[in-house]
Order: sequence, then structure tokens, then C-alpha cells
Amino acid sequence: MPEKKTKQEVKDEDVVYIGRKPVMSYVLAAVTQFNIGNSNKVVLKARGRAISKAVDVSEIVRNKFIQELKVDDIKIGTEEVKREDGSASNVSSIEIYMSK
Amino acid sequence: MPEKKTKQEVKDEDVVYIGRKPVMSYVLAAVTQFNIGNSNKVVLKARGRAISKAVDVSEIVRNKFIQELKVDDIKIGTEEVKREDGSASNVSSIEIYMSK
Repeated sequence: MPEKKTKQEVKDEDVVYIGRKPVMSYVLAAVTQFNIGNSNKVVLKARGRAISKAVDVSEIVRNKFIQELKVDDIKIGTEEVKREDGSASNVSSIEIYMSK
Repeated sequence: MPEKKTKQEVKDEDVVYIGRKPVMSYVLAAVTQFNIGNSNKVVLKARGRAISKAVDVSEIVRNKFIQELKVDDIKIGTEEVKREDGSASNVSSIEIYMSK
């Protein structure tokens, strides 16, 4: 799965970054992207504790809003995060590739 | 991805359920399973907030312990959980299929 080059096909505007807002904020962002965007693809990206929320968003969009939605690929990885004091730590990441 | 029938090939003893223990407990469980088990496959399963931890476990096992580890498939879904008062709520789930 990590070998698929899906990433390169995705434009920046198709990415929804999952952070600290409530789940429904991102659900609406993703649904809106599918409805108004020029693309039929949306990628959810999250790091650390937001990973669980990214899965929630994907499932809610699929179960409640866009039934024909497919999860094409899910990638996980590790990213290095620099803290303010200059030290670095690793954080897990997820990318959920969805299309309709 | 949801259509692959990887699930049926996996025996119960190859599954590591991710819960509330520290990450390293599950990392060691997974590494031990790869080393002593009869199978070269391990599946990490988690629900709700433990989903982030499951990704951490997978990444730590791969980056720090078993470099040749591959993530074969990642499935996400929704499960219904019954509370003690009889009401039901939905919770997201993840299954990470790993092999070496």
C-alpha cells in the first residue's frame, strides 16, 4: 500500500487537515469539497490524537452524507515534529483517500 | 479495500486488541506475536480514541523493531456499542493488517 502513488494526483485544495475543531466541522468541510470542488477526491490528513477523529470524519461522511463514497487507500506514517526548544519528536500520521 | 477478504485468513491468536494500556505494552505484544507465533501476520484492532494508538503501535513496531514489516491493508469501519442503559452509539474502528 505505501507504494501507490495516489498522493501525486491529489491537489492541495482537495486535502482536509483534521485538527482540534469538532468532528462535524471537518465532516462539513469534506462534504462541501465533494459538492463544490472540481475533483471527486478528498484526502483527510491527521497527526497524533487527531487520527481517531479523521476516521470518525470519514465514517460519518460515508454513512450519513455520501453513500457512494469509497475509501480508496489509507496510508499511515511517522513525521518528525520540532518543538519550540529545538528538540524533535515523532508523531504518527494518517492519510485517508476518498472518492465518489 | 473493504472488499478484500484478508480477515478470514487471520486466526484469533494473531489479533492484538489495542485498549487503554501504554503504547509499549501493545508494541511488545505485537513483536512477541511475530517472534513466537506460528504466523507471520498480526492484526491490530482498535476502536474510538484507541485508533491513534493503534497507528502508533504499528509505526513503532515497524520503525524500531521489525524493519521488514509490511502494512498489507488498513480497514476502517463503524461499530455499534451498547451502553449499560440500553442505548446505542456508533464508534469508529480500525484494523491494521501487518506481515513480515
